[in-house]
Amino acid sequence: MTSYGVLGTGVVGRTLAARLVELGHDVRVGSRTAGTDAPGGATVSFADAAAHASVVINATSGLVSLRVLESAGAENLAGKVVVDVANALDFSAGFPPKVLASSDDSLAERIQAAFPAVRLVKALNTMTASVMVAPRGLPGPHSTFLAGNDAEAKTTVRAMLHEFGWADAEILDLGDLSAARALELYLPLWLRIMGSVGGASFNIHVVDGTPSGAADS
Amino acid sequence: MTSYGVLGTGVVGRTLAARLVELGHDVRVGSRTAGTDAPGGATVSFADAAAHASVVINATSGLVSLRVLESAGAENLAGKVVVDVANALDFSAGFPPKVLASSDDSLAERIQAAFPAVRLVKALNTMTASVMVAPRGLPGPHSTFLAGNDAEAKTTVRAMLHEFGWADAEILDLGDLSAARALELYLPLWLRIMGSVGGASFNIHVVDGTPSGAADS
Repeated sequence: MTSYGVLGTGVVGRTLAARLVELGHDVRVGSRTAGTDAPGGATVSFADAAAHASVVINATSGLVSLRVLESAGAENLAGKVVVDVANALDFSAGFPPKVLASSDDSLAERIQAAFPAVRLVKALNTMTASVMVAPRGLPGPHSTFLAGNDAEAKTTVRAMLHEFGWADAEILDLGDLSAARALELYLPLWLRIMGSVGGASFNIHVVDGTPSGAADS
Repeated sequence: MTSYGVLGTGVVGRTLAARLVELGHDVRVGSRTAGTDAPGGATVSFADAAAHASVVINATSGLVSLRVLESAGAENLAGKVVVDVANALDFSAGFPPKVLASSDDSLAERIQAAFPAVRLVKALNTMTASVMVAPRGLPGPHSTFLAGNDAEAKTTVRAMLHEFGWADAEILDLGDLSAARALELYLPLWLRIMGSVGGASFNIHVVDGTPSGAADS
């Protein structure tokens, strides 16, 4: 059993929290508004959710993530594995949204820079919530990605993904946290594919034709 | 038989030209240096390759595509289907390169704006050349994307993809040319996946779990 603090009560936060509760973990959901209904019991403050947890999941909108993590408190986050599943997409000028990541920068790196004692792993930001926690709901194998500077933290996240139902060969480690730029810059394509297939219940599978390819399962 | 003008003599241009020759098409490869060896016969000028063709393929580096198309000549390109397979990646500061596309702009849209009489289709920029022309070399189905404002031009490109071996269900139309932003912003992820799997012979497959999903074949 692992103690999780899930920050954010949107669809992503609630879906992840409900699945972690179902798997038997000790989960607290952090919210701006403590005491409302949530998986694992009533919501608590961001600070209480972070303080309680060994693994913190940032499931807030990427546009407010830094402020939420400030509110959670650097002292409550220090040394913790933080899984950043967020995307910073600005829909204020309509569709398609402006993605704030660039070739030089990403939300994940901004979080790591602001909270250097956090063991940050970018993961699961490339799909809809229901696919994150129930990958076997899609037909056939598909892929999920990790980026981060702390190998042990990635192992922790990999174990969580296994519990969700991801096969090891489906989990591609893309390297250090700068790879989060690539994962966040994928969102415009994700949005266009959603428009083309007519729904969010999809994911991409890396089909690997290299002789020793480990990505194809 | 279709007359193709392939602009560019790098790996992408040569691979596409060789495959089109193999399929029995009338192919001329345009180059800065006319008279050198190329699939379909000696290279010709960019202008001669464009003038000759009913379908022009931009297989140049995205950093020089606009200059090459200027050299090909607006009068030789007007009314033609132009398939833009290029990516504008700036490696001058090392790896990872800076991708010039953004949420607001893409190489394909710059080309369309500079050559309004061209019937531009963004296609095939999301994979290595050998996968473009021989998709059945990878195990199982995978996906390729179209973006453009001219439906008939997309039908022409779709027919070319079929000849290369792409199944219709593998070809996803992402909509108008602004979707090229998403296709070009995918390149950073493509480069990271290449690093993870250890080679370029891969592609992504859209695994669709929506009930009426057409993307999964």
